[in-house]
Amino acid sequence: MAKEKKVEQITDMEQDFAQWYTDVCKKAELIAYSGVKGVFVYRPYGYAIWENIQAILDKMFKQSGHENVYMPMLIPESLLQREKDHVEGFAPECGWVTIGGSEELEERLCIRPTSETLFCDHFKDIVHSWRDLPVKYNQWCSVLRWEKTSRPFLRHREFLWQEGHTLHATKEEAIAETEAQLECYADFCENYLAMPVIRGVKTDKEKFAGAERTYAIECMMHDRKALQAGTSHYFGDGFARAFDIHFTDRNNQQAVPFETSWGLSTRLIGGIIMTHGDNNGLVLPPKVAPIQCVVLPIAQHKPGVLDKAAEVRDRLAKAGFRVKMDDSEQSPGWKFAEYEMKGVPVRLELGPKDIAENQCVLVRRDNGEKVVAPLDRLEPILEKTLQDVHDGLFARAKKNLDEHTYAATSLEEAKALQAEHGGFIKTMWCGDEACELRMKEEAGMSSRCIPFQQEHLGDVCPICGKPAKTMIYWGVAY
Amino acid sequence: MAKEKKVEQITDMEQDFAQWYTDVCKKAELIAYSGVKGVFVYRPYGYAIWENIQAILDKMFKQSGHENVYMPMLIPESLLQREKDHVEGFAPECGWVTIGGSEELEERLCIRPTSETLFCDHFKDIVHSWRDLPVKYNQWCSVLRWEKTSRPFLRHREFLWQEGHTLHATKEEAIAETEAQLECYADFCENYLAMPVIRGVKTDKEKFAGAERTYAIECMMHDRKALQAGTSHYFGDGFARAFDIHFTDRNNQQAVPFETSWGLSTRLIGGIIMTHGDNNGLVLPPKVAPIQCVVLPIAQHKPGVLDKAAEVRDRLAKAGFRVKMDDSEQSPGWKFAEYEMKGVPVRLELGPKDIAENQCVLVRRDNGEKVVAPLDRLEPILEKTLQDVHDGLFARAKKNLDEHTYAATSLEEAKALQAEHGGFIKTMWCGDEACELRMKEEAGMSSRCIPFQQEHLGDVCPICGKPAKTMIYWGVAY
Repeated sequence: MAKEKKVEQITDMEQDFAQWYTDVCKKAELIAYSGVKGVFVYRPYGYAIWENIQAILDKMFKQSGHENVYMPMLIPESLLQREKDHVEGFAPECGWVTIGGSEELEERLCIRPTSETLFCDHFKDIVHSWRDLPVKYNQWCSVLRWEKTSRPFLRHREFLWQEGHTLHATKEEAIAETEAQLECYADFCENYLAMPVIRGVKTDKEKFAGAERTYAIECMMHDRKALQAGTSHYFGDGFARAFDIHFTDRNNQQAVPFETSWGLSTRLIGGIIMTHGDNNGLVLPPKVAPIQCVVLPIAQHKPGVLDKAAEVRDRLAKAGFRVKMDDSEQSPGWKFAEYEMKGVPVRLELGPKDIAENQCVLVRRDNGEKVVAPLDRLEPILEKTLQDVHDGLFARAKKNLDEHTYAATSLEEAKALQAEHGGFIKTMWCGDEACELRMKEEAGMSSRCIPFQQEHLGDVCPICGKPAKTMIYWGVAY
Repeated sequence: MAKEKKVEQITDMEQDFAQWYTDVCKKAELIAYSGVKGVFVYRPYGYAIWENIQAILDKMFKQSGHENVYMPMLIPESLLQREKDHVEGFAPECGWVTIGGSEELEERLCIRPTSETLFCDHFKDIVHSWRDLPVKYNQWCSVLRWEKTSRPFLRHREFLWQEGHTLHATKEEAIAETEAQLECYADFCENYLAMPVIRGVKTDKEKFAGAERTYAIECMMHDRKALQAGTSHYFGDGFARAFDIHFTDRNNQQAVPFETSWGLSTRLIGGIIMTHGDNNGLVLPPKVAPIQCVVLPIAQHKPGVLDKAAEVRDRLAKAGFRVKMDDSEQSPGWKFAEYEMKGVPVRLELGPKDIAENQCVLVRRDNGEKVVAPLDRLEPILEKTLQDVHDGLFARAKKNLDEHTYAATSLEEAKALQAEHGGFIKTMWCGDEACELRMKEEAGMSSRCIPFQQEHLGDVCPICGKPAKTMIYWGVAY
């Protein structure tokens, strides 16, 4: 006889959010530590979430005319140094290859922390005429940044991401691309991950090294801290000039193209955990859940139960749901806890009584609500229940975001609101970095973004008293 | 007016096969050179072939119960050294990271040349009981091997591949897995890439560093050289012992599991080029072709032609074909040459006369054959034509393989056959490495594999005259 497995407990999030987070990452079998500090193993269940994210985004990118490529993982130091701001931002956190085979290299090579320099070096060779533009490329790969601290999904020395790199004949077209890709990310977060976002522009202090302008989407986690979920950068023609990229325009004149890049990484999985999870473990948005519905036969030793459960599983799989049946010898109680920990959006219970009545019971992971489903109409009911879970998760996260976004008109007020409630504090801002630094120093908050959706909260910057230029969001960020 | 683009010529394969190959790689826009020696850029058209290969194999792997994971790209030197044969085989061609951020590392890290050591280090933590077995993992990633020479797709310092790693309770199960995955590769090559293969076992000299036994599939290229297209390794319990992987078996006894790994890489794209290509460029097997059918409107300035062509394109896309329409200003002649160079399996021509007769013309890339297709029945006819291209490619490659596989009963004969015809030479073999070395030295051929399908060609090894153990294939390999 198999011994009953123990259901492992996790720390309550109210007691220790950071420990709760680590517990979920480990107990839901998303990730494991590796032999190299700060580098993690993406386990099958965690990687499957990423595969679903990839499949959706990849389709979106291709529909908007982007093509996938694969660039080298190694960047010669001289290439990295070509754009001044870029190298200053990234060189301090590179991993360097200095030996190849048994020989010391003449020039050391860094493992890509991001690939702007590699794309530019290639663009120089393939772009000659206006007919070659736009170039709209994307790459799925891992990158390396030698961070001092690490946390599963949120901060790895090596992490998986996608990076889009595009080149355009005009500034307007490049800016439109940058904004369109930010909107693509926002759409994806809201409509696939059930994560409401704030769309906006980063301050100069927080923008990407080498960018003229960085757009970002910002999410609020359950502990009311901010997570930057995706960024899109407009480079102007700075990189193109640094890398000697030219083209002959329609008037037969030499011209320099305009560039963008945009990226989204596995840190988003950390965002999913911290947005939707609860004290029973992970809660996955149905559209990226590796298992959307787990079929649990009840009293499975009774005649006909397992056959019927298998029939239901096969029906659902055929209808395109991601479904799994667990007919192991573990108790129903253990199984309930296990699939709650794994965040499966819907549990389907099917016992002898249900079979007699030609029905089953669907249990929602987000709120425990039970839906009795006649087997004749199971597919549309499951479809709707999954959408309800998505909607429920989005509504709860939106409520958290709305309820914990506060307006402040003085530095003292901002400080007090953050100390008491956490969340996002919105204020007016003069645009000076000095005020950003002061907010960081006194209230512990960094600027999150200058939102597209502006409000008029006053005429002056509450930090320095000078005339305000914009409204800005502040928060404590991951 | 747009200037007519020039159709670029490529070298004839009969004149210089190596130059023909490089020309195709460049002119079909599959690959580009990068700033690091031996490292290449996978361009959109080349990468799209790999994406199609990935999609098919990934589905096969998952159907046979494998799960994807992602392991770190960096291996601490001490970890790589754990298995003696393995480190001897791979350490000489590693790239080493010695600096992280601005600090010299205490222990240098190599960029994975392959990931057995990383998987083992993880298996040790996740396998405890027979219930945890089998573990059947796969990973899609890039690996680095500091090769001295390089050729597009065939030999890169960095290349893309998949590596499967599995762990089993018994030796029998592990061997069955190794063989099943080899058969999976053979099935894929023959039925998706139209590349006939020889299935067999590598000699001890040619096996993977650390393996007890390596299985391989070998293909014959158009120039009659051999290409190893995929390998599957049985490790016994050697790695498990070296990495302290244990489990409690069904009888509650401590036991050591058995391991396998298997890999297939982008070198297969090189194999596709050299198996099917011709003097007009690339010829792609339809099942992995990024564009299966290119729609070319003829006399496109005439009223109704472009609309009808777009309608046909949309219909085919909706039916699931990978289709593209080229309505650019280039001449039909230029377009014909362009899509021949790119190896598009079927060209669809549609002009005013065709439209009047409610038909179009399909032209096969493999043999130039024209098929007149009534538009009413276009989808099934295109489907069949694509299958015909696949079958035609396979038959031609099989003929090349069969006609250039020769039996020899003496070393002199083997030498003469190779010198005169190239191809595979099959002989009996005693099993001694000395004879392998001699064949290499005198006839320039390495052992390709000991095929599953054995024939009796004699009683003695033609090299040393000692009693023969098996029949073996020899060839000059990429």
